[in-house]
Amino acid sequence: MRRIDLASAGFLLLEKRETPMHVGGVNLFTLPEGADEQEFLTSLRTQLRENTEFRKPFGEYVVTGKTGLYWEKDEHIDMDYHVRHSALPSPGRYRELFALASRFHTTLLDRTRPLWELHLIEGLQDRQFAVYNKVHHAAIDGVGAMHITQAMCTESPNGPPGYAPYSLEAYEAYKQSRFGNIAKTTNPSKRDMRNVLEALKQQYDSSINLATAMRRFGLAFVGRSGNLAVPWHNVPKTSINTRVSGARRFVAQTFAFDRVKEVCRGLDATVNDVVLAMCAGALRRYLLSRDELPLHSLKAMAPVSLREEGDVDSSNAIGFITADMATNIYDPEKRLRTIQESMRAGKDLLRELSPAEGALFMQLTQLPALLTSILGLGSKFPAFSTVVSNVPGPKKPLYWHGARLDGIYPASIVFDGFAMNITLVSYHDQLDFGIVACRRSLPQIQRIIDHLEDSLAELETVAGISGSAARSNNNRRSSHAAAKTRVKAKAKTRSKVKTKASPKAKAKTPSKAKPAAKTKAKRGARKSAVKPKLARK
Amino acid sequence: MRRIDLASAGFLLLEKRETPMHVGGVNLFTLPEGADEQEFLTSLRTQLRENTEFRKPFGEYVVTGKTGLYWEKDEHIDMDYHVRHSALPSPGRYRELFALASRFHTTLLDRTRPLWELHLIEGLQDRQFAVYNKVHHAAIDGVGAMHITQAMCTESPNGPPGYAPYSLEAYEAYKQSRFGNIAKTTNPSKRDMRNVLEALKQQYDSSINLATAMRRFGLAFVGRSGNLAVPWHNVPKTSINTRVSGARRFVAQTFAFDRVKEVCRGLDATVNDVVLAMCAGALRRYLLSRDELPLHSLKAMAPVSLREEGDVDSSNAIGFITADMATNIYDPEKRLRTIQESMRAGKDLLRELSPAEGALFMQLTQLPALLTSILGLGSKFPAFSTVVSNVPGPKKPLYWHGARLDGIYPASIVFDGFAMNITLVSYHDQLDFGIVACRRSLPQIQRIIDHLEDSLAELETVAGISGSAARSNNNRRSSHAAAKTRVKAKAKTRSKVKTKASPKAKAKTPSKAKPAAKTKAKRGARKSAVKPKLARK
Repeated sequence: MRRIDLASAGFLLLEKRETPMHVGGVNLFTLPEGADEQEFLTSLRTQLRENTEFRKPFGEYVVTGKTGLYWEKDEHIDMDYHVRHSALPSPGRYRELFALASRFHTTLLDRTRPLWELHLIEGLQDRQFAVYNKVHHAAIDGVGAMHITQAMCTESPNGPPGYAPYSLEAYEAYKQSRFGNIAKTTNPSKRDMRNVLEALKQQYDSSINLATAMRRFGLAFVGRSGNLAVPWHNVPKTSINTRVSGARRFVAQTFAFDRVKEVCRGLDATVNDVVLAMCAGALRRYLLSRDELPLHSLKAMAPVSLREEGDVDSSNAIGFITADMATNIYDPEKRLRTIQESMRAGKDLLRELSPAEGALFMQLTQLPALLTSILGLGSKFPAFSTVVSNVPGPKKPLYWHGARLDGIYPASIVFDGFAMNITLVSYHDQLDFGIVACRRSLPQIQRIIDHLEDSLAELETVAGISGSAARSNNNRRSSHAAAKTRVKAKAKTRSKVKTKASPKAKAKTPSKAKPAAKTKAKRGARKSAVKPKLARK
Repeated sequence: MRRIDLASAGFLLLEKRETPMHVGGVNLFTLPEGADEQEFLTSLRTQLRENTEFRKPFGEYVVTGKTGLYWEKDEHIDMDYHVRHSALPSPGRYRELFALASRFHTTLLDRTRPLWELHLIEGLQDRQFAVYNKVHHAAIDGVGAMHITQAMCTESPNGPPGYAPYSLEAYEAYKQSRFGNIAKTTNPSKRDMRNVLEALKQQYDSSINLATAMRRFGLAFVGRSGNLAVPWHNVPKTSINTRVSGARRFVAQTFAFDRVKEVCRGLDATVNDVVLAMCAGALRRYLLSRDELPLHSLKAMAPVSLREEGDVDSSNAIGFITADMATNIYDPEKRLRTIQESMRAGKDLLRELSPAEGALFMQLTQLPALLTSILGLGSKFPAFSTVVSNVPGPKKPLYWHGARLDGIYPASIVFDGFAMNITLVSYHDQLDFGIVACRRSLPQIQRIIDHLEDSLAELETVAGISGSAARSNNNRRSSHAAAKTRVKAKAKTRSKVKTKASPKAKAKTPSKAKPAAKTKAKRGARKSAVKPKLARK
């Protein structure tokens, strides 16, 4: 029995049927050349089910002890339950994939078992297959999930095949390859025991930095702390800040990392600033189209990692910065600058603190906001307007059992007061967005995908990047399978907010480009049967 | 707002994550000749989603009022949520179908919406497709579900196509065709308001019958009531009577109705007696193979319908008889006779009462046992050992949009103390069994299917029906698609309990028979791609 730390236990204790607390997402792959889909997936499924040793806590389930919650080893783990094999109905577009992922993301994990599920999904077009995974937030955070993806994959299609994602084997090999000779300052098993209350006891009285930070944070409430945005302060109410029901909708999209980087260079901003500006522009468009753009700017909760270098063990090492999304500002450049300043102020505050102090500061200031939300008060007292989470992912193309990883689309949590969650992962030369929303409160989140494109195109124009330059960037992307992730489904309707003729309409065309001829020729009988249907659309 | 009656509300109030309170099942169909699977299912899905008028309460959701629970109209029903389209992974055997149905049956319905889901499932072999449906027990009971299946279907493949299952249209047409000119003595809207407490007030003092019945029931506890079995009395503990977790396993099988009827004739027993004896024999075998056959006989809760003729409106009009399953008796004929006597005693007791009195009697005596179970005390004080529910279904072959209905496999509820539920439906010339169990407590329920066959074969021998006669009956069945429902998956291992060489092994062969050549020739490209895999197995 290992005690579950307080931050992780919170996700278990506050979970409700309407607000499941699992994270996960869809990983897209392309089958290795010449591989037969059914043989490949059947053999993969068998291998995954044969795994018997797990990294913690993936072989454990939750038990309630006298003094809290504990992980306890599951001696009879039912791998057929955890590793599942599903299929898409014809015609097997991304639309069908997202519909299935939406359903998977809706249901609660079984508390009597280790808190994860992994679904192999067949039936996609163009020799792709997908893996949907789902892990309780008590067991993992976004950065932790990235470590797992990286640990299961390899950097070559022909080398060793890779590992089962939650296996002990993958964990140990990864730790060795990445941090092998760096002396670890903290002992993993001790870190697992860390408890916010202990940290509080150790540090509260002694830390002068923390006291300063707390004072500055307090001043922001009364408008005397420069550009620092704080939760609850002037947060408007929109349809994003409502009570949520249990069902989810999931959509995803890839953007070329180079497009964002060029905007960064042109406007002297960080990737995170530009990503937030993309989201801010998209949210502004979305709210305008629904005729509910509020007078006050939206505030986004932007999680930041508080992990120390080399820490691949912590379940939850996240803090939050409140970003002013400047959605009330018409001019896209001014909007970007306002976001930039609020992020800078938030980061300055954190930078003055050590990681341990930072963690504590977050517990004291912003985590209560999260709890308000989870407790159902979020719709009455919104602490933020939405969540925009930017998770750094693998820098090189990855392969799993010889299959190329085409995209990593995260699916996170929504709760009362935050009916939408935008999470993105940087992977090699792309930014993969995954958006989750309450199906009832926000029925049209697929439009956000189009608004993100509009918003990026607008920033490109501001940065002086011509339409053709953007196009050429997109052309470069068209050889990557992931660029095809654009969902045409339902998103045809253009919003009324377009401020000018953007280069977007043209820039999009290349992503429709057909895959390389060689993969086409290899398609199985099923694909050809599906083909005419698609063409008829 | 309509008040939800007490019996139905009970299923809502006592639902837990570990014990979902929905019922449903899998309906198997064969595509109309010449129809393309994808076109057919897509068009069916579209039609189902276009329905806007529902029979009660399928367009309503549950609200909590000051004095209880109410149904309230859902003004924004999201039909994409309720009508879903899924697919089976290759090779698309019944094994994959049951794995998918097991997952569907595991998850809770969303309380903020009308309490039903309908899943069209493609990817089966031999031109079949499946429909999994799931309805909260607060909205329907087993007989009600049969009325819905019959209302949506037609008796001819070429006539009118049929209806959306929960549509008002289907409901009204069905009521008219079946009970058109029978004067209804009860007003449905009043019946919906009926409340056990009111019944209690009206009848408790006046009914002499009820008092007699109660006395007889009480005497059974002290062993002075002949063959009447009562709940809690001498109920042994087995692995079936444990706490359950949230996950389910579902398996199904068709048996030829004629085989059971011949046993009835040979042994002078009712269909229900023989079905209970089949189950008793199967349970005995199962428990013996796990080395846990108890000294005392298992008791089965056998629900009986308390509906009055022509009542298609009541959500829950069920009572229960406690059947002594005689699992401690080695001799199959003696076992049957003991079951028969306990059923006769239970029915005699009910026969003396009017339907209204019967309903009240059930509330007073056996429903508390159900509640004990639901409240989590069932594993400590098992009132029964299991549930065997025999639901009368359609007497003629049915069609839905021209597709032949091949089988109706019910999936019901398990809860603490009853980790297994056996429900069967009589349909035309077959008996369709659906078995649901807690995935954790009873990991091998697919064996029950084989034990049922062994048990029936044993009864055939006792009845003097030769192996060849049984075979010939099975041969007749082999032309029916539903006979193919036998699951080979995992069930190969024979239990050690076989008392003699049964004719079963041979009798099973015909069910493997391939479908008629004409359907084979029509298979699409996907099927042929799948074929070789199957042959290789």
